[in-house]
Amino acid sequence: MAREADVVIVGAGVAGLVAAHALMQQGKGALILEARERVGGRLLRHALAPNCWIDLGGQWLGPTQERAYALAKLLGAELFPTYTDGESLVYFGGQARRYAGTIPKLGLMPLLDFGSAIAKLDKMAQQVPLDAPWRAPLAEPWDSMTFASWIEQSMRTRVGRWGLKLFSEAVFAAEPFEFSLLHALFYIHSGGGVERLSNTRGGAQQDRFVEGAQSLALKLAEQLGEPVLLGQPVRQIIQRDDRVQATTQSGATFTARAIIVAVPPTLAGRLEYDPPLPPARDQLTQRLPNGSVIKCFAVYDRPFWREQGLSGFVTSDLEPLHLVFDNSPHDGSCGILLGFMEGASARQMSAAGLEARRTAALQCLVRYFGERAAQPELYIDHDWSAETWSRGCYGAHFPPGAWTQFGHALRQPVGRIFWAGTETATRWMGYIDGAIESGERAAKEVLEIL
Amino acid sequence: MAREADVVIVGAGVAGLVAAHALMQQGKGALILEARERVGGRLLRHALAPNCWIDLGGQWLGPTQERAYALAKLLGAELFPTYTDGESLVYFGGQARRYAGTIPKLGLMPLLDFGSAIAKLDKMAQQVPLDAPWRAPLAEPWDSMTFASWIEQSMRTRVGRWGLKLFSEAVFAAEPFEFSLLHALFYIHSGGGVERLSNTRGGAQQDRFVEGAQSLALKLAEQLGEPVLLGQPVRQIIQRDDRVQATTQSGATFTARAIIVAVPPTLAGRLEYDPPLPPARDQLTQRLPNGSVIKCFAVYDRPFWREQGLSGFVTSDLEPLHLVFDNSPHDGSCGILLGFMEGASARQMSAAGLEARRTAALQCLVRYFGERAAQPELYIDHDWSAETWSRGCYGAHFPPGAWTQFGHALRQPVGRIFWAGTETATRWMGYIDGAIESGERAAKEVLEIL
Repeated sequence: MAREADVVIVGAGVAGLVAAHALMQQGKGALILEARERVGGRLLRHALAPNCWIDLGGQWLGPTQERAYALAKLLGAELFPTYTDGESLVYFGGQARRYAGTIPKLGLMPLLDFGSAIAKLDKMAQQVPLDAPWRAPLAEPWDSMTFASWIEQSMRTRVGRWGLKLFSEAVFAAEPFEFSLLHALFYIHSGGGVERLSNTRGGAQQDRFVEGAQSLALKLAEQLGEPVLLGQPVRQIIQRDDRVQATTQSGATFTARAIIVAVPPTLAGRLEYDPPLPPARDQLTQRLPNGSVIKCFAVYDRPFWREQGLSGFVTSDLEPLHLVFDNSPHDGSCGILLGFMEGASARQMSAAGLEARRTAALQCLVRYFGERAAQPELYIDHDWSAETWSRGCYGAHFPPGAWTQFGHALRQPVGRIFWAGTETATRWMGYIDGAIESGERAAKEVLEIL
Repeated sequence: MAREADVVIVGAGVAGLVAAHALMQQGKGALILEARERVGGRLLRHALAPNCWIDLGGQWLGPTQERAYALAKLLGAELFPTYTDGESLVYFGGQARRYAGTIPKLGLMPLLDFGSAIAKLDKMAQQVPLDAPWRAPLAEPWDSMTFASWIEQSMRTRVGRWGLKLFSEAVFAAEPFEFSLLHALFYIHSGGGVERLSNTRGGAQQDRFVEGAQSLALKLAEQLGEPVLLGQPVRQIIQRDDRVQATTQSGATFTARAIIVAVPPTLAGRLEYDPPLPPARDQLTQRLPNGSVIKCFAVYDRPFWREQGLSGFVTSDLEPLHLVFDNSPHDGSCGILLGFMEGASARQMSAAGLEARRTAALQCLVRYFGERAAQPELYIDHDWSAETWSRGCYGAHFPPGAWTQFGHALRQPVGRIFWAGTETATRWMGYIDGAIESGERAAKEVLEIL
């Protein structure tokens, strides 16, 4: 098979799909090559029953993610608020405490410690330019240390430190020692502050898709029609003069005047490029690992915790489920608790296998919600580091030195190769909104040379 | 083309070649698939004149590298000592100072500061188990911070800090903020201490190969004969039942009962595996970037600095050549200064191009050795991050978290896939000696299942 198009796009996640739309709106032909037998990338829905969806992948939208809300509206993808009524639980040091609102009852000193740390982080984050974090006035010292080192130096209470560890796991799917302070600050700025990133109501976990977040990608692909080719993993990209050619694992070739690579950096680095990529770009992709996360769902006949006045939201220091949400469908037709294994926990539980994960997850849920949680009708989980075409979620993080030494190569086109994907976004990097931004930006860059 | 062997080996660097030898000595058939049109991997010699070699890649042996010395002896590869007669130079703060011996004259306080830091590092390094750094009693805190953070916290003088920055660049081809304290300590233990790693006489830079270090690989390959296939980049590894199949870019297939992957982790991670690798192994390879180094050679009619009583050895804070050696051939038939651009300098100068590098390198050499250095008969350099089948040198480094979260997957075989290469060594990781250890160890593992 050999085909031609104005533009070839690698990856039918939101970034690639949005780029294709933008190009086609300008009258350009775009062809998307997708490795999987489905579209959506890190968005993946699963039907529990007819019209009852859960998201095994990304699932939330929140305030200031204007691009994502606009796209959802445009496509007619219906949203509903994440359930937040009732009291939340904090489980720390072997004890569960109920609390109303967003501030757990963990003592005055820890709260002051945590609050002061957040205020500092938010203030420092403002000094990180979103389009060039390496130009922050203090970029070098901030990129020379891990976020963990900053926590160690800046915080005085065990509970406060635990709070930022939880923040790291929840937001980066990585431990605070895996990325630099500069990356933490960039990301905080990119998402509009620590609270905006962390919160459900008023934050990045505010709204869900009635038909699953993947419906966004499915609707986009539906509108594009035939130009999305599934089951076509691109293996090689050849540039000659004013032409680019992508070859898939099956040997099919696709020739275009430009190519947009819309997959995570670590996977983009695994393609074969001829001529080879410049050193800075190649060494960048060696340095941007994906986080580690397993999403765990326990499905009950009804959301029984609501009857106890609980929101279902839990933060905890108990292994391996540090974070739990009420993830029941919008009509409350059944009750679903969604627990996250992230960072170190995800790595341990990934190797342990499904049965061990089920046991460990349910043991946590019992500690949080009582014996009633022990017998779900269904337990299901999804390990994103085991997905060949993602190899980790939610996204890439930047270890110390990556931003200052190689950040300039993140979006820099290489001849007729352009880079998209949420990791290349300036606002809401790592989120659906960032993926949209990146697809629009890459399409714009391509249009300038077509 | 389709062939069979007992064992297929990916990569004809020293590790792969040694593994093949070890297997063939036990009567097993081994076939090496090498991407390049040459053997040697990160060892690469270049003929300046007939029988006058320089090493564009790895070049030194030193005490306690018993495996490397034994192999050199076995193969009849002749060695000679790196030139160290005369006084060395330290160029710091715009001023060059001569000194005899190994301790530059930089004031008492800086020397005490540096000496005390080295003593601490050597002592801490002893607590890192070479086969399992993540089991060090303080593995977690040490892997949570960068080496730069430790330097910042532990040292009091600017000169002392500069000394350890230079150590990082010279030994890791990376800046101190790019790897964890735990990795620094592991590596120091692996190489027998800071001084052993740093020194010329009595250290890792002590001896050179008369015919270039690559001669070791060439002689190994010669003895193996036909089983090394050049120009065969492996693209895919398929495991089924008790068989493993490697497919090269040209579509040739090679079937075996086991396979040894003897390439750097970041390149091993780019192969396609079917079934896919376990998450821990895949995520490990996302986290082990190669360092950045450009070796620069200025060739003169004779080693004129020797006439001024200079050894040719320079340490400096002047960009971009922080480190210079007399690298003249053993017969002194011409004079060669070898300068290293490492870490941040290598990245800047890689993008700057050959002419800019030549200018910058010679400007440094003039500052160190006077105007006589301005006009070499030849300038030549080699940027290892531009080499498609290395993508950086000297080797991989472990950023914070990599050892403690993923180190266990470094040598762990995956079914019939075994891992070699100097990054998998316990002693002298990153060196020729480590490559030999890794090849021997992988062959032994394979023999146990054949």
